Order: sequence, then structure tokens, then C-alpha cells
Amino acid sequence: MPLFVSEQTQFLLDKVVSQSVHTASPSFIGHMTSALPYFMIPLSKIMIALNQNMVKTETSKAFTPLERQVLGMLHRLVYNQDEGFYGRWLHDAHQHLGAFCSGGTVANITALWAARNRAFAAVDDFKGIGREGVFAAFKHYQCEGAAVLVSERGHYSLSKAADVLGIGRNGLVAVETDGRNRIRPEALQSKLAQLRSKGIRPFGLVGIAGTTETGHIDPLDTLADIAAEQQLHFHVDAAWGGPTLFSERYRDRLQGIERADSVTLDAHKQLYVPMGAGLVLFKDPATLSSIEHHAQYIIRKGSKDLGSHTLEGSRPGMAMLVHSALQIIGRRGYQLLIDQGIEKATAFAEMIRADQQFELITEPELNILTYRWRPKAARSLLEGAAGEARFRLNELLNRCTRYIQKAQREHGRAFVSRTRLTPECYQGQATLVFRVVLANPLTTLAVLQDILQEQCQIATEAALADCIDEIRLLTDNR
Amino acid sequence: MPLFVSEQTQFLLDKVVSQSVHTASPSFIGHMTSALPYFMIPLSKIMIALNQNMVKTETSKAFTPLERQVLGMLHRLVYNQDEGFYGRWLHDAHQHLGAFCSGGTVANITALWAARNRAFAAVDDFKGIGREGVFAAFKHYQCEGAAVLVSERGHYSLSKAADVLGIGRNGLVAVETDGRNRIRPEALQSKLAQLRSKGIRPFGLVGIAGTTETGHIDPLDTLADIAAEQQLHFHVDAAWGGPTLFSERYRDRLQGIERADSVTLDAHKQLYVPMGAGLVLFKDPATLSSIEHHAQYIIRKGSKDLGSHTLEGSRPGMAMLVHSALQIIGRRGYQLLIDQGIEKATAFAEMIRADQQFELITEPELNILTYRWRPKAARSLLEGAAGEARFRLNELLNRCTRYIQKAQREHGRAFVSRTRLTPECYQGQATLVFRVVLANPLTTLAVLQDILQEQCQIATEAALADCIDEIRLLTDNR
Repeated sequence: MPLFVSEQTQFLLDKVVSQSVHTASPSFIGHMTSALPYFMIPLSKIMIALNQNMVKTETSKAFTPLERQVLGMLHRLVYNQDEGFYGRWLHDAHQHLGAFCSGGTVANITALWAARNRAFAAVDDFKGIGREGVFAAFKHYQCEGAAVLVSERGHYSLSKAADVLGIGRNGLVAVETDGRNRIRPEALQSKLAQLRSKGIRPFGLVGIAGTTETGHIDPLDTLADIAAEQQLHFHVDAAWGGPTLFSERYRDRLQGIERADSVTLDAHKQLYVPMGAGLVLFKDPATLSSIEHHAQYIIRKGSKDLGSHTLEGSRPGMAMLVHSALQIIGRRGYQLLIDQGIEKATAFAEMIRADQQFELITEPELNILTYRWRPKAARSLLEGAAGEARFRLNELLNRCTRYIQKAQREHGRAFVSRTRLTPECYQGQATLVFRVVLANPLTTLAVLQDILQEQCQIATEAALADCIDEIRLLTDNR
Repeated sequence: MPLFVSEQTQFLLDKVVSQSVHTASPSFIGHMTSALPYFMIPLSKIMIALNQNMVKTETSKAFTPLERQVLGMLHRLVYNQDEGFYGRWLHDAHQHLGAFCSGGTVANITALWAARNRAFAAVDDFKGIGREGVFAAFKHYQCEGAAVLVSERGHYSLSKAADVLGIGRNGLVAVETDGRNRIRPEALQSKLAQLRSKGIRPFGLVGIAGTTETGHIDPLDTLADIAAEQQLHFHVDAAWGGPTLFSERYRDRLQGIERADSVTLDAHKQLYVPMGAGLVLFKDPATLSSIEHHAQYIIRKGSKDLGSHTLEGSRPGMAMLVHSALQIIGRRGYQLLIDQGIEKATAFAEMIRADQQFELITEPELNILTYRWRPKAARSLLEGAAGEARFRLNELLNRCTRYIQKAQREHGRAFVSRTRLTPECYQGQATLVFRVVLANPLTTLAVLQDILQEQCQIATEAALADCIDEIRLLTDNR
């Protein structure tokens, strides 16, 4: 039986809305989804009501130049080319400054797709990897495999991309990181040499501007040098950290991003746009031509239809919301948001360090940090030499972390996420940590203090008693 | 300088909204985007305001079971398994009935990705194509290439998928169609034999339930037989035609779809949901496991996070809108919409046939048809034997079709799209046609009559005078 709109709305309110996650809450600091500016709601309504389809101008008209405008604005943020450049390319029918999409994963896949197709381009009688496929390409280019390199902190979408693109998840080669979760250039160099000696052809290098788990930034300038020297497509995954470029104070942390061949940005993260908006930008507008495609009824050759250079087909007019955010929040507004986030993270790190009951695991470079609950008595054992007792203690603390994180989530007042790191100070022992993302401008230090207090409280719950006893035994024995 | 919300809103209203495409207009019958039910606007507002992220339950909570519910409802529409089946699988943590995504293109890529990974699965010391890539897979399985077959009317997203997935666009093998744009089974069989004789391994067969250009449906039952016999993954691209299954009267036109291994459906087409919602369903919930992936901080093994089985990462809660449409419009509501569309197309075809100034090019099987303007005098030449004069006449008519379609679009009162077909009756000569999609329930026969009238009017415009003169010369000479 069909329902009345009122009945369905009631159902949604009772069973779904009330049971959804309050992503805008100042104490929901576990993931990358936070509060939206209020104007997004009425503007989204316009977007939904117009129901444009960006795949072609025939179903999007003014939205097509608007989306190109947005790509241009963000291209300028990253690459800052001159007026002549944007005058020439912004509305060009054949070349595109980037591709708008549903999120960072599709952006990363698009970047590596273009990189793969350029690395194995048509030459002589070979028609290119896009046409002939990976098998013919490797035979023609005489290699046994192809590889993209990224630090072991790379986002899981990259390994998904390697699977999808037919180079295989083994073709995404993870490179060791240093104590601050940044790729080690010398480890990268030696991986590259190893791969080449095995007949595997590296074609892409990914730098991370804001790792998902810890918010760290790779040495992008050094990576750009290596990419240039080794003729690799240099992609920067700035899904999270990209908008740091708005900050006069912190933008130099991304030094070198302007040398990237392509850059992923997520608008639904730090551009504060609703879920479902990402994009990839290309330094050279010719790059995206390697994935160009056409059809008879739309995206015909020479048309300005955006769909000829995107992985997706039909797409909503989310660019309207990104455009509005860029215009209304503006460069200085984003600067404020970015600066406050980084400074709040620094202050929170200080608060954790000052508290005897917690251990800071990663220092914030952007607005992300990780830490864990750790009873005061455990400190000296952890700071001492590695050994069986310390190993066991870390395992027990992992149990505590998992329990506390889950319990806090279930209590429903606050939310931090958890992940597993391999800190240098523990010789790479798997270590569960609380992960905190400070992007909501409504989150105050008082909120953060409350979160720590609740975590201490949960640590006294009966379910953890055995675990705490064992920790006590271990640390008292010293 | 940042803008006030009021300033940006004014800009949007003046420059974007007023210059957007009126996709909901009853005379906008050229593409697959049409009117939305009114309740979508307030419900979308809820969706946007909640800003859930479907990648993991930690950011979507009640939205996760809701999305699974929607996948189950549509799985039932296509496959109609018993209660036990849905009880077992609907909310299973490890297996999924399908994957929700931004649209049909990602749905098709996901289906072929899963098919590819199953066809080249791990065996002996080979770890599977997802891990080791296409090159190692083909060497292990001893083939020179891999192929997916589809009729020459297949959607362009399939060739994009072949490119992305590393089998190459050449690996998407187009099979000849009959006079009604349906794949020829005997041509398919001979293509399959040809491929195998060249050492190329076919692994997928795509049937179309509603071709994008003409709305025709492949003989799905026959394709299912061939796929079973040749051990191919049978995918049905029902992005357009899928909801025909709601119609008691017309659902048998899709006979055989229930034998498909996977089916693509677009919710933003004939489920009348705003742009950005598609999905792919799998008959066997184990199929999607071939693309499963995990990370440390989300989509951990054993979690119910939806992100472990989707190509995209972060995704909005569009499932809420699909759920609402299914509940409020209901099976009988969709039946009404589908029946009216097909019957309106039949009536419009009749109207075109009865009009001496037009030529029906493809009969509607669903709610899509194609036709062109053709002066009465040209009829006998077109119906006569093929020859140089007829060839030339068709070329002139192509010019008229292009001109009329563009002029009508620019006048702004009505919109039909155009595409290029290769009709049997003209021995495959490239023929431009008007393409009409009748999915808007507000489109009446009177509106359609007006569209024909305007087209006749445009045909008398000065810009076409030379062309019309030449047509007259050609047809008078007979």
C-alpha cells in the first residue's frame, strides 16, 4: 500500500532522522563531516528543484559555465596561473582544467586513469592503453607491470583505483613513512629502483596533503623533484588538506602542491558543502584529454558538454553550492576556518600532553590528531625500552581504546573515531588510537575537555576492570 | 571580496536559475530528466540538513539499514526471491544485494568490475586480477585479451568502463542489431566464436533494457541462455527501462531480466528522484565480494559499513529519497507512470505516422521514439530503391534535422534531442533524428502536437531555404 507523504515523513522523523548521526554537533569530532553553513539549506533546495544534469549543456545550460568557473577558481587556488591562462582555457570546448565529481575517490581514480592513459599513450601501431587495454600496453611498452607509489598512509581509495584500473592492488606500492607519517624520500627512491629492476614501470607518484588518519603532509617539493626526475605523473591527494591554501599563515605547509600534475580536493570536506562534491584539477589542461569520450546524442565532439571528460555520466549541479560557498565564505572566511582548526588542534594537543591520563600519539600538522587513554602509572613502562612487558601493555591499551571509543559513541554525547597506527616510538607495534578531526568551528576547548573527561570516566567501567587490573600488575611490577 | 548571502542568491537567480534548463517542463521531452514529485523538495532539505555520509555507519547510522532496505526493495522488484532470502541477506555484514551510487555509469562500472574480478579470480598461486592486475591475470589464464559484448546501441558508459577497467575500449565488442535496435543473437554467437579463436576471453555480456537512444529492449531471455551456455557474467543495463517492471501490463517486455547476474537501475530517471542516484543489484550476494576492500579507520572487516562494497567512498543519503518515492508513489503509482508513458509514446508515434510532414524512424517499445521532419514530396524517393539521389536526400534531411532541433532548443519553448542512427531501411546510412523521451506525466498530446507544428514552422526559415530547394529539385526530378 502506498503511504501518504505525511505518513512517510512521520516514519522518517521517528525512525531515521532521530536515529541519524548528528554530524553537525560540536562534539562529533571523529570524522570529516561537520557542520554546514546555514545558507546551504535554501540554496540546496534551489539546486534540487532545478534538477539540472551536468553531463551536457542541453540539461544544464548556465550551470555548465558555472561549474567551469568553480574549477577555475580552485585551479587558481592551487596553481595560480595568469589571467591569460584562464582566459584561454576556462571555457575551452576541448580541454578542461579539471573534473567535478561525487567525491575524492572518483577524483583519485580519474587522476590515476588519466595518468595511466598518458603513460601508456598511443605510439607507432599501438593505439593507447585506453583503446587496447593493459595487456597490449605492457607488451608494447615491454614491462611486466606498472606501479603508482604512495606512502603507507595513502587513502584506501588509491588501492581501489589500482584494482579498478587493472594495474592491480599490488601495483599500488606503499612507501615507508617517518615518525610524522610523511613519506621517506630515500625509501621512495629505493622502491623505484627495485621496481625498475623487476621490469615494473612506475608511472605515478602520489603525495598526500593531509593523511586521512593523522592529517600529515608529505614533503611535496621533494616529491615533485623526484617525479620530474623519474618522469612520473605527480598527483597530490589534498582531499582533506587542500583548503589550507586559503590560509596565509599555513599555506606554505603545502609547498610544492603547485608542481603537481593533478590535485584532488573534496568540497564536502573543508569547503563546507553538503555530501557528494569532489573534484580533480590538472595543471596542464591537455592531461584530461587522455580519457576523453563521446557519444552521438550528447557530449559530441566540439561541444562544451562537461560529460566528455568525467568518469561519471549524469551529475547534479553541486557546483552551484561550491560556487556559493566560495563567494559567501570567501578566501578570508576559509582562512579563518582553517586557522582556527589548526590552532584548536594545537591547543588540544597541549591539553592532552598536560593530562597525565592521556598520551598524544601524533602531533597535529593540520587540524587532525591522534591520542589514547593511558593511566599515569603506565607512563614509565611505555617510555622505557621495548620489551615483552611493554608489548603486552600496548595490547591492553589497545583493548581499552577500542572499548572507550565504542562506549563513548554509544553514549551518544560525543564521538571520536579510532584507527590503528604503527608509531615509530613503539617500533611499529600496531597501536589503536582515538582520531580527532577539528573542522567544526562550533567545537570549543571546553567541549574537548568534556570529551577527555568522559573517556576517563568510561575507563572506570566494570567491563574494563580485568584489563585495568592487568595493566596495574604490569606497571606495578616494574 | 566575500558576498552577502542575499547578493549571491540574487546572482544565482539572475544569472543561473533564469538561464537554467526547465527540465520539469512538459515540452522538455528531449532527455531523461523530467519533473519531480513535489515532496522531493522538503525531503531533500532533510537529507541535506542531516548531511549523513553513507560510507560507514558511524556517519550514517539509521541511514545504513535504510539504504539496504532500498536495495532489497529493488532487488525484489527484479529478482523476487523468497522471504528467507531477504531475511538472510538484507542486513548481512559480509555480503551485499547491490551497491548504491551516484548514477548508471558508476553502476555499470561496478557491475563489470565485479564480473572481471570473478572471471579472473584467484586460483593456485595467482592471487586474482584485483590484486595482481590485468597483465598477470591474462598470463595466468592464458588469453590475449578479454571482452564484454553488447549491442551497438550500448550506452557509452560501457566503453568508458572497458577503458577504466583495463580491458580497453576494444574489449567492449559491439554486436550488430536488428531493425528494432535489438542485438542479433546469431551475430553475438559468431562474435563469441571469433573472439575465442583469437585467444580473447569473453567474460561479460550486457543486455539492454531500454537503449538510451531508442528505448528498445534486447531479447533478454535469449541472452541469458547464451550467457549461461558460454559462462559469461550476464549484466542488464536497465538504467532507463528497469521501472517498467512495476507495470503489470508491460513488465513481460523485460522477460529474462530476472536471470541477469547484475542489473543497473537509475533512480534519478524513472524512479523520479533528484539527480545523483543509481544502483546496481546482484542476483547472488556473493558476487560483490570480488571487489571488497577495507581500511583501518572505517569499513573494517565484519562491520556493516556500506563503503566496503562500493566504488565511491563518501556518499550522500540519497537512499532516503528513493525509499520515500517507493513508499509514496508505490507500485501502483509507478505502474501508472510507466503505462501512461508507453501509451503516450504509442499515440505520438501514430500522430507522426499520420502526418505527411514527418517520418517515424523508430517505433516505441517503451516511452522513447525517434522521428524526423520530411517534406511530403520526399516520401516516394525515400521509399524507393537505394541510390545516389536517395543518399543525397538523406544527407539534406540530416541538415534539416540538425537545424530544426537547434533552432527549437534556442527558441526555448520546447526541446527534443537529436541523435544519429543507422536505420536498416536506409542500409545503415547515418541518419539524424529527433529523439523524444516521454517520462513527464504532464506532457499531453496537445503539447506534442505543438512541438510538431513548431518544427514545421522552423523548416520554413530562411536559413534552410537552400537546403529545401535542393530537396525539391531532387524529389521533383523523379
